[in-house]
Amino acid sequence: MAHGAGGKASRRLVEGLFAPVLFGTNSEPLTDAARVSLNGAQIAITTDSFVVNPISFPGGSIGELAVNGTVNDLAVSGSRPQTLVVTFVIEAGLSTSVLEAEVRAMAEAAQRAQVKIVGGDTKVVEHGKADRIYMTTTGIGTPLRGVTIDPRSIKPGDKVLISGPMGDHGITILLARGELDLEADLRSDTRSVFPMIEAMAAAAAPGIRWMRDPTRGGVATSLNELARDCGQSIHLHEEDLPIHDAVRGACELLGLDPLHIANEGQFLAVVSPEYVDSALYALQQAPGGGEARVIAEVREQPAAAVLVTTQYGGSRIVDMLVGDPLPRIC
Amino acid sequence: MAHGAGGKASRRLVEGLFAPVLFGTNSEPLTDAARVSLNGAQIAITTDSFVVNPISFPGGSIGELAVNGTVNDLAVSGSRPQTLVVTFVIEAGLSTSVLEAEVRAMAEAAQRAQVKIVGGDTKVVEHGKADRIYMTTTGIGTPLRGVTIDPRSIKPGDKVLISGPMGDHGITILLARGELDLEADLRSDTRSVFPMIEAMAAAAAPGIRWMRDPTRGGVATSLNELARDCGQSIHLHEEDLPIHDAVRGACELLGLDPLHIANEGQFLAVVSPEYVDSALYALQQAPGGGEARVIAEVREQPAAAVLVTTQYGGSRIVDMLVGDPLPRIC
Repeated sequence: MAHGAGGKASRRLVEGLFAPVLFGTNSEPLTDAARVSLNGAQIAITTDSFVVNPISFPGGSIGELAVNGTVNDLAVSGSRPQTLVVTFVIEAGLSTSVLEAEVRAMAEAAQRAQVKIVGGDTKVVEHGKADRIYMTTTGIGTPLRGVTIDPRSIKPGDKVLISGPMGDHGITILLARGELDLEADLRSDTRSVFPMIEAMAAAAAPGIRWMRDPTRGGVATSLNELARDCGQSIHLHEEDLPIHDAVRGACELLGLDPLHIANEGQFLAVVSPEYVDSALYALQQAPGGGEARVIAEVREQPAAAVLVTTQYGGSRIVDMLVGDPLPRIC
Repeated sequence: MAHGAGGKASRRLVEGLFAPVLFGTNSEPLTDAARVSLNGAQIAITTDSFVVNPISFPGGSIGELAVNGTVNDLAVSGSRPQTLVVTFVIEAGLSTSVLEAEVRAMAEAAQRAQVKIVGGDTKVVEHGKADRIYMTTTGIGTPLRGVTIDPRSIKPGDKVLISGPMGDHGITILLARGELDLEADLRSDTRSVFPMIEAMAAAAAPGIRWMRDPTRGGVATSLNELARDCGQSIHLHEEDLPIHDAVRGACELLGLDPLHIANEGQFLAVVSPEYVDSALYALQQAPGGGEARVIAEVREQPAAAVLVTTQYGGSRIVDMLVGDPLPRIC
């Protein structure tokens, strides 16, 4: 199971087996959406399968997640999400009412995110050959003017912003499985982050160097990938990390680090120092961005590492997610 | 299971539940790929999930099928296939050698079809929550010059062409399951049909009115959809239908109609009478098109029906596939 969780095992699978065979050997860093040029137009394209368990949970369901997840991969690649296509693999015996609810959830999420669903496919497999329903969404977007995402452009002194509290989605899913004797007043944060990114880009496009939605593997995994790709180090300040008490409490009980917990409606951005104030202000004024803040800065040393400075002044290395404490989170 | 087989139940699911909710109410006929305009460029997009069982079979495997199936949906929509993205839902415990073989099969099929794979995603689910591996491919293409696919442009006297023998893929899969005490010297016909379509379009583009790859539900289902969309009737001549003896024999033994059996590397085209000779000639000269032929003609009456004239001069109505004799064929 470790290969599907978005951390080290997953990166090895993608980089070791899939990427060289499927994409050829090129030196471009892996991004959330690929850019292609077709008939003279630049478009961005991204695809994801969704196998979240359970399929509905406080704050959302698989249909919403499948739309927002793909919309967000386009948004953090610096693109305006435009068009989606969807597929469903349905386990025989799934009730029509559940299927209908998920199709409606998907349609409503698409409407909220202002993307158009233009095509799809359904396959039905025997009972026991899937887990209720799996979805795959593919999204097409167009480049946001003036935004260039390139981790190699990052410089010491750049700041890392986050759009809001960490870990709500992952802990919500974990508790919704009902396997732990734990309850908390939490909801998945699933939503489109595009309105926040659009507002930030309007105010500070030239200062935006990198963005990522910290889903599987959490903030720690995204920042480790960033550190590796830019060759510099990311210094987090523990007291600046926005974490709801319920998430913090569940993580303490379960021995998990909130930095490793999946998010669905948040994004990270690296912004140059001269633009960070205007980026943060724009983000905080945008709908849903009220809790945005600066959580880290980039330094030259140590190379390719993520460190967190604790409230007591010490510092520790934050690794990527290893193994898989949280499978099927999206 | 009936909803996944591509026949009547499937069409009801797509048209009854999915289409109005997801795509809104528009009067466009359902096609194999959607056309969208982005930054001034027209592109075609299509997506399909692949759940074929078994995952490898004489003549191919799921990785090849996933590339060719999506490439062909673009091709029959009158587009040049350009770019693919792929996702994998992998059952925990699938051996790395199987996974690696399928990734390679996919890469090789993409190279043969001259499309570039630019992105992807993997998810792993628990053992027993999928059947080895499911794949989803989404393809982007650009319009082929001068080709307009519109069933409403079809007129009485138009001819229906097929690119080669019917039913090889479906019967191959059925036999590969090993549940029937039957053997036959058959291989799946999985391949890209784009080279044939490109050659035909170069010779006869203004005469091409409609194309479709008769996959799930077979030639009968594709032609019934066509008859419904154009409001006219399609008259097949039984003696003109290209069917390998092994397919004919297996169908007789199993009580199946070859017209309902899935194909993966064939396509149907409706061509106007003045272009049919040049279209057929170009098709027969193209690599893989040697067995192409005219199998039917369009007539005004009876409305929206498919009929086959038997060798003894009688004629019978050919319906869409009803129920699901052949689930998980692709």
